[in-house]
Amino acid sequence: MNNDTDLNKMAIEAKKATFEMAKSSAEQKNKALKQLIENLKKHRNGVLQANLQDLALAKANGLSDALLERLSLKNRLDGIITDIEKVIALPDPIGQVFDEKELSNQLILKKCRTPIGVLGVIYESRPNVTLDISALTIKSSNCAILRGGSETLHTNKILVELIQEALKAAGLPAGAIQLIANSDRKRVKELLKLDEYLDLIIPRGSAVLQKFCLENSTIPVVTGGIGICHLFVDKEADLERSIEVILNAKTQRPTVCNALDTVLVHSAIAPILIPLIVRNLEEKGVAFRLDNKAWDLFNSSSCTRANPNDWDTEWLSLVLGIKVVEDLQEAIEHIQTHSSGHSDGILTENQQHAERFTIEVDSAAVYVNASTRFTDGAEFGLGAEVAVSTQKLHARGPMGLQELTSYKWIIRGNYQIRT
Amino acid sequence: MNNDTDLNKMAIEAKKATFEMAKSSAEQKNKALKQLIENLKKHRNGVLQANLQDLALAKANGLSDALLERLSLKNRLDGIITDIEKVIALPDPIGQVFDEKELSNQLILKKCRTPIGVLGVIYESRPNVTLDISALTIKSSNCAILRGGSETLHTNKILVELIQEALKAAGLPAGAIQLIANSDRKRVKELLKLDEYLDLIIPRGSAVLQKFCLENSTIPVVTGGIGICHLFVDKEADLERSIEVILNAKTQRPTVCNALDTVLVHSAIAPILIPLIVRNLEEKGVAFRLDNKAWDLFNSSSCTRANPNDWDTEWLSLVLGIKVVEDLQEAIEHIQTHSSGHSDGILTENQQHAERFTIEVDSAAVYVNASTRFTDGAEFGLGAEVAVSTQKLHARGPMGLQELTSYKWIIRGNYQIRT
Repeated sequence: MNNDTDLNKMAIEAKKATFEMAKSSAEQKNKALKQLIENLKKHRNGVLQANLQDLALAKANGLSDALLERLSLKNRLDGIITDIEKVIALPDPIGQVFDEKELSNQLILKKCRTPIGVLGVIYESRPNVTLDISALTIKSSNCAILRGGSETLHTNKILVELIQEALKAAGLPAGAIQLIANSDRKRVKELLKLDEYLDLIIPRGSAVLQKFCLENSTIPVVTGGIGICHLFVDKEADLERSIEVILNAKTQRPTVCNALDTVLVHSAIAPILIPLIVRNLEEKGVAFRLDNKAWDLFNSSSCTRANPNDWDTEWLSLVLGIKVVEDLQEAIEHIQTHSSGHSDGILTENQQHAERFTIEVDSAAVYVNASTRFTDGAEFGLGAEVAVSTQKLHARGPMGLQELTSYKWIIRGNYQIRT
Repeated sequence: MNNDTDLNKMAIEAKKATFEMAKSSAEQKNKALKQLIENLKKHRNGVLQANLQDLALAKANGLSDALLERLSLKNRLDGIITDIEKVIALPDPIGQVFDEKELSNQLILKKCRTPIGVLGVIYESRPNVTLDISALTIKSSNCAILRGGSETLHTNKILVELIQEALKAAGLPAGAIQLIANSDRKRVKELLKLDEYLDLIIPRGSAVLQKFCLENSTIPVVTGGIGICHLFVDKEADLERSIEVILNAKTQRPTVCNALDTVLVHSAIAPILIPLIVRNLEEKGVAFRLDNKAWDLFNSSSCTRANPNDWDTEWLSLVLGIKVVEDLQEAIEHIQTHSSGHSDGILTENQQHAERFTIEVDSAAVYVNASTRFTDGAEFGLGAEVAVSTQKLHARGPMGLQELTSYKWIIRGNYQIRT
């Protein structure tokens, strides 16, 4: 297999594999995934050895403890195996028919789910992504060319070998999952131009990576995973329960994209609510950025005055912006201006306000009376996710198996002609 | 309104208009479209005068009669008005809910259709496209920045004025439909970089234009409208009716993308079928490109030997390639190699062959026993179309109103938190 640097060869191999994958059965795909689990169990030591090699190099290169933790597979392998088992249990999306109709000329039209083709997935550090994405790619009859972080090269190499062995054991082409085993950044730019063979680029990583892909790719790119998330507490909200939701949205896992970044508080309840928010959340180590109106109402040692950039910042940490707004209109306008289109919500008992909020706030997930933390493929019942899209084309929000499909129109007739 | 050259200003105006359009009612949108019809009727003379100005300039610039015919609105205005009436009659796609579910924690999830936002539509010559696209854009609560051909500048200017008047009369923002009233090619390149404001680029035109957009755009691009279309006549086809289908697919309107380009004939029936095809179609003025096997079986004065490039050519004229294949496998492989992924079909009474063909041929429209000419928004019952997509992301095949929508997840809860 071409786990080397000849990208063109790899892409041709992947394209060739799409034809085999497109006609593979659900049984064959599940067989490959079951074999992958067997391979991971059998070669657990080898995988962990390779991972230790990566960790040692990363440590020598001065990577932070947080990054080293993300890189480590030691306590993750069993969880990953459980995740692959979940993918096996999901229904096969390929061949599913939706929208069926008979035209007046008796032609029968069906829209039928098909694989997308070859995915180019570019991601950083975490080697569990290699297995997550590969399992979803195989189950959706797609092919993928993977480009993981240079810090995980040894781990990814052995993982992709085990995946390719599993594919072959199930009678599927090893070329369906390939790894760019080269950390030269130029390779990414080359990959983005192979529109003759690749159908979709998924950059999982920083805003800088996503921008680079958008600017350099001649292949469609699905961007996402960046969440500047808001909750607006309306004057008719249940304040006690609102505090619980804000606490959850900010602190349950502050490093992820669906964590809360800014609370907008209706001016009528701000004098009561802001002290409650600050006192409840500062106990959990949260620091606050307050606009002038909020500051004048209440502040403590955990508070600083917000600067204008704060409203456009994805905190990914225990920092929370608080801003007082006059009404629903101002809240919506703030969100329209500053949201990244990931997850935004309103807390209110006023159904008209809730309705207006869901129509006018244009984000992938719009919440009424719930924590923003639910935006996730598993939570939404999709089984798993390959990314959370914040763009409006193709798929929006968590991308599971169905979002990794395209469709074709199948038209059956009796020698009809157009008149 | 900014029908000028300050693209950035236009894009900001369009983005601003998206918020108004997103909350507009079906009634308002239909009111704007009805007013547009009134405006067209009232200013018919002005529109035709502007069109004559374009025609005179085009003639002076030496445009061919065929291109001049495409440019003329004289005999088209009534048809365009009928098309706008059809769009008015279509159901409003915005706000439609699909995929509704309740999670075990009682959160209620709905996927709800939303506008995409700002479309950038780049097209050539035909001024009717200005009205078609604008009607679909308004009905789907989107906004559009239009860039028509330089030959139609006077016509497009007055049309967009009438559209903007109609929008204003319905209480909708005039900025929802704007025209780049400048024929400088550099403007297109600038437009393709305005990803902060635009959500989708639709290039309707040549392969060169589409490639230019793919290579230069940082905004998602939907390509399509290029059809290298095949019919495979299996040995178990009804030969007499196959001839009718081939005749229809090639000659009913040879200049369009769903017209037939290549017939693949099973070797077992080739000695009978090829003479029948040639004799029946040469009467209609068709010229043939035959592969060596076909040539050895039969040829006439309307036939020449095919050269390898012919199989990758979209004829858009009365030319038809004929190639003999040994079996279904060879037919599928030829199509996988040479099809543009638009419309391909099999003619056969063998259900297993039909089934295999529909699985393994990966085109937007895959036909069993019908003419390829049906791939069209109106024929498929979508009411109208903005383009025919041959890519696999977002939408595939004819793009009607629904294909001009995105969706958001609306989640309603009772202050649920994630544990």
